Amino acid sequence: MKLPKGFTGAGIAAGIKSSGAKDLTLIVNNGAQKFGTAVFTTNKVEAAPVTWSRQVIKDFVVSAAILNSGGANACTGPEGFSDTHATAEHTAAALGISSSDLVVASTGMIGLRLPMEKLISGVDTAVAQLATDSGVALAEGIMTTDSHPKYHRSEKSGVTIFGIAKGAGMLAPSLATMLSVVLIDAHVDPVKANEIFMKVVGRTYNRIDSDGCTSTNDTVLLMASGSSNVVLSDSELEQLLTDCCSDLSLQLIADAEGHSKIVEISVIGAATESDAVEIGRACARNNLLKCAIHGEDPNWGRVLAAVGTVDAQMNGQNIDVSLNGVMVCKASAPHEDRERVDMKAKEVRIVIDMHVGAAQATVWTNDLTAMYVHENSAYST
Amino acid sequence: MKLPKGFTGAGIAAGIKSSGAKDLTLIVNNGAQKFGTAVFTTNKVEAAPVTWSRQVIKDFVVSAAILNSGGANACTGPEGFSDTHATAEHTAAALGISSSDLVVASTGMIGLRLPMEKLISGVDTAVAQLATDSGVALAEGIMTTDSHPKYHRSEKSGVTIFGIAKGAGMLAPSLATMLSVVLIDAHVDPVKANEIFMKVVGRTYNRIDSDGCTSTNDTVLLMASGSSNVVLSDSELEQLLTDCCSDLSLQLIADAEGHSKIVEISVIGAATESDAVEIGRACARNNLLKCAIHGEDPNWGRVLAAVGTVDAQMNGQNIDVSLNGVMVCKASAPHEDRERVDMKAKEVRIVIDMHVGAAQATVWTNDLTAMYVHENSAYST
Repeated sequence: MKLPKGFTGAGIAAGIKSSGAKDLTLIVNNGAQKFGTAVFTTNKVEAAPVTWSRQVIKDFVVSAAILNSGGANACTGPEGFSDTHATAEHTAAALGISSSDLVVASTGMIGLRLPMEKLISGVDTAVAQLATDSGVALAEGIMTTDSHPKYHRSEKSGVTIFGIAKGAGMLAPSLATMLSVVLIDAHVDPVKANEIFMKVVGRTYNRIDSDGCTSTNDTVLLMASGSSNVVLSDSELEQLLTDCCSDLSLQLIADAEGHSKIVEISVIGAATESDAVEIGRACARNNLLKCAIHGEDPNWGRVLAAVGTVDAQMNGQNIDVSLNGVMVCKASAPHEDRERVDMKAKEVRIVIDMHVGAAQATVWTNDLTAMYVHENSAYST
Repeated sequence: MKLPKGFTGAGIAAGIKSSGAKDLTLIVNNGAQKFGTAVFTTNKVEAAPVTWSRQVIKDFVVSAAILNSGGANACTGPEGFSDTHATAEHTAAALGISSSDLVVASTGMIGLRLPMEKLISGVDTAVAQLATDSGVALAEGIMTTDSHPKYHRSEKSGVTIFGIAKGAGMLAPSLATMLSVVLIDAHVDPVKANEIFMKVVGRTYNRIDSDGCTSTNDTVLLMASGSSNVVLSDSELEQLLTDCCSDLSLQLIADAEGHSKIVEISVIGAATESDAVEIGRACARNNLLKCAIHGEDPNWGRVLAAVGTVDAQMNGQNIDVSLNGVMVCKASAPHEDRERVDMKAKEVRIVIDMHVGAAQATVWTNDLTAMYVHENSAYST
């Protein structure tokens, strides 16, 4: 799959994964503009590549990104940071760029050092294979327990956007969750593009919550090459980015480990958008509700019990809950017959009306299954 | 089992539960002092009896308490509140006391009205059976999915304390979690006793977190009769209350539904006690960590990933983690060989040293099992 103008990339097998699958992705921006910005995990225990890349993006200049799967390089101490540093120096030298313009990202097991010899030699292989039609390989190089490569490509007003993402929704054993890179060949205003990207990530990636566990490595990177010579309006840029990041976010939820349901939780009538997000998230993280959904049990009491734990403006006696279109609860009391709710489909839709304002937000999650417990307890790491 | 001096009680089967098991507990304070105070759920969607009882305890005068299992009277609208009101009026009249001194508590299914005729007739039966040796029956009357009645009795310095609690640790299908009543025959200073009780509940009941789900009905009530004519020192009172509430809290965790492990999480070296509690709680609520513990996998990376999500003072690169006495992680990096950790026993002990201060706290939880998912998804309610 062809990358946006100005970008080359390679996804190869460096031998970091014992399986022999692809485990290294290199992306290079050869365009006139070398804009880059990123959103990182809020986890205070952050992986070495996150610490490194936070510095790199500060000036909004990113020339290239090197991403590996097969090892998160998290909780590896000063030696782990040296490994990230060495990776950046080697890659930058091979590309003839400054290491301070090179983003590094890793995903995989926590607490293990990376096999640096294989990784460094893999960088050389990747540099030699850089190509403009490497889209799918880029997505493959960052896969962990994902069942398929996740990517999105679209074009609009002469601009091409292409994004990749990895993450099996629920964290796999000791694996760090989510990496994503979005490439666009528009010419962008750095400050404005950063602002729009933060907003888009806040409304897409930050609204999926498969199992409430925040990883040490999450990174979402945006790179713009300017090579299409097109300048989009702010709203056009926001739309393209939203389409790409929404699609990738939902691909992550749809591929969550050990799930049987995809759950859309829409909170309406909230006082603020942030209240609506927190209420949706509290439901997405409530194990009892997630179990009920797995059991196809229209247990609206668990929705209310979850909503009531949130530090948000509400009247606990005046909340409506609809499950798959049936308003089972009105004013926090039973309303339509819960027997009318059909929960057999894979998709479950919950609408919660708080009746205190006009703000709203939607959060996506999965159910909690015995398979999730099995996948996250049975395999020692 | 004999109650502390000044108290009588009865635990009977009123027919609220279809099983015919005991479902109604009445406790009466006949002492010279009729002190009472309580801690209630922080859930904003609170059950009708919680709303009622919040008012009752405001003046620290409680003459009696009526508690039922078999129905939570939560999310039942204005009709549900009327039911609580009617229960209080009827019970108070039968006892010849003011309804404004009567605490009501309910536990069971959310979203269903109580069978008022049975309940009211049960109150009359209970009043007729009031006795001083009804301890175990009081505990039985509030059981839901508990596998055994939970109570604690001890004597010190001429004072007797007796407490009951219910709660299967993890919420059962649509059941509200925890009720507890503690009776003491010391004479207490109301303001001081309230202050001490809040502190004790904060360090006992509020430090068990089986599945992170806060119920709509949680109530912990303290009643003092003064009938021993003994005034304890503040520290003696605190000690007696702590012994009772700790014991009952751990009985709840030990009887959690669908668990295979009891997990003690001690956070030391924290900046504040509140930071230590929040860090412990974040671990107690992390599904990935709870799955790893179930799988007897010494996965310290999941401990660190959970710790890092907390809004507490920390250096993400300088945290130690011990699992069952083996320091598997020092300064946020691998230390002793994780193969040395033996996790076969039912009890698992995690010690987390934050190295930023001298405060500490311990939180108790359970693991996450396929049985938990089964018990909370397979039974429709």
